Amino acid sequence: MPGNSFGHIFRISTFGESHGGAVGVVVDGCPPGVPITAEEIQAQLDRRKPGQSEIASPRKEQDTIQILSGHFEGVTTGTPILILAHNKDVRSEDYHHMKDLFRPSHADFTYQKKYGRRDWRGSGRASARETLARVAAGAIAQKFLREKLGVEIISYVEQVGAIRTEVAAHTVKLSDVEASIVRCPDKEAASKMEQLIREVQADGDSIGGIIRARVTGVPVGLGEPVFDKLHADLGKAMLSINAVKGFEIGSGFASVSLRGSEHNDPFEVDAHGRIRTRTNHAGGVLGGISSGEPIEFRVAFKPVATIGKEQDTVTAGGAPTKLSAVGRHDPCVVPRAVPIVDAMTALVLIDHYLRDQAQR
Amino acid sequence: MPGNSFGHIFRISTFGESHGGAVGVVVDGCPPGVPITAEEIQAQLDRRKPGQSEIASPRKEQDTIQILSGHFEGVTTGTPILILAHNKDVRSEDYHHMKDLFRPSHADFTYQKKYGRRDWRGSGRASARETLARVAAGAIAQKFLREKLGVEIISYVEQVGAIRTEVAAHTVKLSDVEASIVRCPDKEAASKMEQLIREVQADGDSIGGIIRARVTGVPVGLGEPVFDKLHADLGKAMLSINAVKGFEIGSGFASVSLRGSEHNDPFEVDAHGRIRTRTNHAGGVLGGISSGEPIEFRVAFKPVATIGKEQDTVTAGGAPTKLSAVGRHDPCVVPRAVPIVDAMTALVLIDHYLRDQAQR
Amino acid sequence: MPGNSFGHIFRISTFGESHGGAVGVVVDGCPPGVPITAEEIQAQLDRRKPGQSEIASPRKEQDTIQILSGHFEGVTTGTPILILAHNKDVRSEDYHHMKDLFRPSHADFTYQKKYGRRDWRGSGRASARETLARVAAGAIAQKFLREKLGVEIISYVEQVGAIRTEVAAHTVKLSDVEASIVRCPDKEAASKMEQLIREVQADGDSIGGIIRARVTGVPVGLGEPVFDKLHADLGKAMLSINAVKGFEIGSGFASVSLRGSEHNDPFEVDAHGRIRTRTNHAGGVLGGISSGEPIEFRVAFKPVATIGKEQDTVTAGGAPTKLSAVGRHDPCVVPRAVPIVDAMTALVLIDHYLRDQAQR
Amino acid sequence: MPGNSFGHIFRISTFGESHGGAVGVVVDGCPPGVPITAEEIQAQLDRRKPGQSEIASPRKEQDTIQILSGHFEGVTTGTPILILAHNKDVRSEDYHHMKDLFRPSHADFTYQKKYGRRDWRGSGRASARETLARVAAGAIAQKFLREKLGVEIISYVEQVGAIRTEVAAHTVKLSDVEASIVRCPDKEAASKMEQLIREVQADGDSIGGIIRARVTGVPVGLGEPVFDKLHADLGKAMLSINAVKGFEIGSGFASVSLRGSEHNDPFEVDAHGRIRTRTNHAGGVLGGISSGEPIEFRVAFKPVATIGKEQDTVTAGGAPTKLSAVGRHDPCVVPRAVPIVDAMTALVLIDHYLRDQAQR
Repeated sequence: MPGNSFGHIFRISTFGESHGGAVGVVVDGCPPGVPITAEEIQAQLDRRKPGQSEIASPRKEQDTIQILSGHFEGVTTGTPILILAHNKDVRSEDYHHMKDLFRPSHADFTYQKKYGRRDWRGSGRASARETLARVAAGAIAQKFLREKLGVEIISYVEQVGAIRTEVAAHTVKLSDVEASIVRCPDKEAASKMEQLIREVQADGDSIGGIIRARVTGVPVGLGEPVFDKLHADLGKAMLSINAVKGFEIGSGFASVSLRGSEHNDPFEVDAHGRIRTRTNHAGGVLGGISSGEPIEFRVAFKPVATIGKEQDTVTAGGAPTKLSAVGRHDPCVVPRAVPIVDAMTALVLIDHYLRDQAQR
Repeated sequence: MPGNSFGHIFRISTFGESHGGAVGVVVDGCPPGVPITAEEIQAQLDRRKPGQSEIASPRKEQDTIQILSGHFEGVTTGTPILILAHNKDVRSEDYHHMKDLFRPSHADFTYQKKYGRRDWRGSGRASARETLARVAAGAIAQKFLREKLGVEIISYVEQVGAIRTEVAAHTVKLSDVEASIVRCPDKEAASKMEQLIREVQADGDSIGGIIRARVTGVPVGLGEPVFDKLHADLGKAMLSINAVKGFEIGSGFASVSLRGSEHNDPFEVDAHGRIRTRTNHAGGVLGGISSGEPIEFRVAFKPVATIGKEQDTVTAGGAPTKLSAVGRHDPCVVPRAVPIVDAMTALVLIDHYLRDQAQR
Repeated sequence: MPGNSFGHIFRISTFGESHGGAVGVVVDGCPPGVPITAEEIQAQLDRRKPGQSEIASPRKEQDTIQILSGHFEGVTTGTPILILAHNKDVRSEDYHHMKDLFRPSHADFTYQKKYGRRDWRGSGRASARETLARVAAGAIAQKFLREKLGVEIISYVEQVGAIRTEVAAHTVKLSDVEASIVRCPDKEAASKMEQLIREVQADGDSIGGIIRARVTGVPVGLGEPVFDKLHADLGKAMLSINAVKGFEIGSGFASVSLRGSEHNDPFEVDAHGRIRTRTNHAGGVLGGISSGEPIEFRVAFKPVATIGKEQDTVTAGGAPTKLSAVGRHDPCVVPRAVPIVDAMTALVLIDHYLRDQAQR
Repeated sequence: MPGNSFGHIFRISTFGESHGGAVGVVVDGCPPGVPITAEEIQAQLDRRKPGQSEIASPRKEQDTIQILSGHFEGVTTGTPILILAHNKDVRSEDYHHMKDLFRPSHADFTYQKKYGRRDWRGSGRASARETLARVAAGAIAQKFLREKLGVEIISYVEQVGAIRTEVAAHTVKLSDVEASIVRCPDKEAASKMEQLIREVQADGDSIGGIIRARVTGVPVGLGEPVFDKLHADLGKAMLSINAVKGFEIGSGFASVSLRGSEHNDPFEVDAHGRIRTRTNHAGGVLGGISSGEPIEFRVAFKPVATIGKEQDTVTAGGAPTKLSAVGRHDPCVVPRAVPIVDAMTALVLIDHYLRDQAQR
């Protein structure tokens, strides 16, 4: 089972290297009749694309996609949807000096050992450029979830380095997220984060961060016990994004210090006669199945590995050497990762929605 | 795609409810010729079974398993292995009073909504008793990994409530873990943890904890980009265990405050001429593929939901009610979860090892 | 991906060897609320069991099954269903003399080469006893399909050796099939077939046959282009049954001599205003998707390999030897294979029905 | 689980409609380091392309493919390979008059009912143009199998209408197959077949045929009991090709009239000390696992549905109407289907080879 597909019923298969011919995705299993345009997909891609702000990688890709199948008269047809972006602003020569060495904390070493070779231009298949495909597929999933079920996914940057916003997640709107180039809805924190990123950038260094996601409108019943629990699949989805080192749902790591009597979410009946929980430490999932409460989780991103600062490493032959990267990279990945978190969330939810439908 | 199977090549399918006829597992895809006995499997199960200590659930299950297929003359045959334990110490009457209400932070509510019914005896399929099947299958995987590849998996309790050991993971041996009933290798911390658990137990309450795992001997090259990254599958495996709310690999959430120049793991050549990394913030995985360095991760468990203390909840019909659980439960799940973490780790690794073999 | 599972949403995983502890199946993905009893499953198994007539293998297995999970208060719960039959009438000593040789046209040789070992008692995993598991799972699928959709599956023996019935498939009722021990609904042909089988049996030989199946009530729309066409999955299902050498749908091999103008099935509107086809050369499938017309196919079974007559073969070491089998076997497999064809048909249909539901 | 993917480890996902933007395939799981060029793939595609002879569809597609990922410095890299052909000679206006009616024995009706819509240009996704993707992926598989294992696949046209060659399959070479435009290696039969096809073509009609395949060099041990038997997967692969109505392996349907003593293939030791079977009624598969003998099977193709002759049908609204197709089509599909059979055979074999490797 190769690892380039995700989902069981709404199933995406991505392809492409950062400096190859194209990157893209085949979406199989999308229900027929979903209205979607290339422009709607492009709008999500624009949130991910390099060069969108001064704190993002200066690579000049418009990431213009084409829909080449599975789409007719403005809607999906139920057959596989091919979405593809040709690679344009490719400067493979930037990577020549790194062709025979292993960049620290990059996938160069492990790809070389696993496959016996690697496409050294850019980061090959390990490039974050692959996430373009995820965002494109996710745009279709998001459209379906929003229109069919009223699902709304809001992700934002909660932390960059040690700077953290305490804004309450339930108050955040998409426009707040998009108001700053760091995608933090708290203006003051956003401003500090931006300043920190600029400092790090000036140092030729990089910095990590945390994205928090909150999803409303998810129907009760999504998630398959016992292995394909909804939050287990969300966790896998997030951990599959480049640079992610941690995932927690609901109260997460903080829950360990609590007692059951503090942590349990008591059931009650709300004003509309619906059974709800008074608190939501669970993060919207009980026994691996969505409870109807908002799904809330956090994703930790390490500082990106590519830095301008000189580092120790070794050549493919094992000789010690020094490396100062000159490729175009982001000093902090989280602002551009927000739409990727949105997309992966949508892909998990639509797949589980369709899986649940199958058995109803 | 139902959710009761895990793995692609070494594939397990578990079944069983806590108060039904039996729980167990079919292991399909196990290589032929793995020497394994029922006793070896039982030894792992004994680490998981209830009633093993005063701080564990007093349910008196011996969890005695039978191997009913796929095993001949002391070794696996390459055909499916059925391992089964009949349920013995079943007191369904304990659950009668909870038949028509939803226990807070349990799966009762979501199962009812998803399936339109639920087996209310014990926790049905949502019972942690299901993990018996995982441990049984994991015992075979662990045997294979140890004998064939020299892989050693050591998990232990790092934290209970706010009590935490700072012991260095690389110094911990299995005998240290097994030395205390809380499975914390640091005697002093173990003693405090035990005391805390007894207090919580006396209160009719529960408490959470953290398990840390460290795996050595994993060959370079396991993990499939881009979705089935090794740590993404480890994360999913851990998050699929009951009560788990968080997962982090390597430096995890702490990485976000670091700069790339601090966090990157420089390559160097060791005394044996092997390319290694000087540090291991990555936790043994680069680009989703094992690097040959120890795999290190942490798993957060919430306080278990079943507590003796009175709680608010509602009946299936939506009427407010009070609940004081009388079932047999653990005040803290982490001591018994250690072998489950071991098992799920082994299941991920063997599956990825076989996947990798397929393409070499 | 091991090969002991079948289906994607309604997914069965079978296990067991003919002389091991037990044979059975885990059914995962069965919708909740399907009313089914052990007796209903047993009724289908009785059609398959050995010893049911003088022309069947005299092995005395009652094939009594237990349902050990996924079933509560008379209905399925949506969780995995374990169905298991212990092996009772096991005479492994019968197989001792064949332990070190390869029976012609059996799987002994290929299992030995593939796995480096084999369970030589009976036919191990290659035994037709494995089909018990298929019939048990199929009984649940048949119940669902009949009650939910009005699907009726009628299979019968159309040919044994050169003796063939020309009965029109659409006139055949289940009671006609069950009226004879050969399961041929044409009394005269049945009588000749029975006589032929007794002759073959007396000779210590075996003979092949053909089963024809006809399925009514299948809704329009089942089947997934382009690889998982409904008839492709039916073909695979049938070819996975022991001794099957051929499959054809609709006009099958005979279609090759026809012209398109003869073979095409013109559309017309029937008395109820429904679009139907005038003829059904297609066998109920157009472009891989069910058309609403009856699904009709034929399955060819070779003569079973185990015969009493002396045969040439070699030992595991490669020395020429002679073999006269003394195990208990059927001189003709088709009468007992009818419920297996029914079961595999139902398993394909329910899985495709649920797959179709997922995307509606 | 959508149906546009095939294989488990060497896994292809095809996409594209006959008159959409492009058709193609993503090949995931191809081992790294397989030397392959676009020209080698093109050579196989040229055997499939329309317009290659006077008896093929006159559509003027060069089917020129691009490899856009997973390929670097002349070899595969282990990452997904995107192969794509843009649609060029598209005359959608030819299909306008058929937009609102259901062509007999076509997929129009079932797609409309399943998806609620269809791409009526050409045959949309149901077009045989999709097989271009299979042939492209199969070319890589064939290269691997030939160079790594010495596998040779020879398929040829054995029958067209009632005209049949009795040539012995083991004497046929690829050059014999390619010597005639009908791809029948028997010159005399080929000439008669060609004449028949021209007559049928002149009549505005179509005719069916049979392709026979023989594969040598397959190692012992491929195929996974019990459902994924090698011949079951070959059968599914063939039945998934447009217009296929039947499949048989080895002695196939003819086996039913034989006795076990006639049909069994006795084992013996050949001059090289290898265990072989004296005959090969089994067709190279025992118990679902390759035996090392040549794999032999036959595939029945119905007459293609698109004919120029006037036919009865109904409109989408259910009104009776007449249809005389004017699209470009083949009077007999088997000559162009030979490379498709080759490709699907290779895809089954490489996947089973890799699956077998995983467990060795």
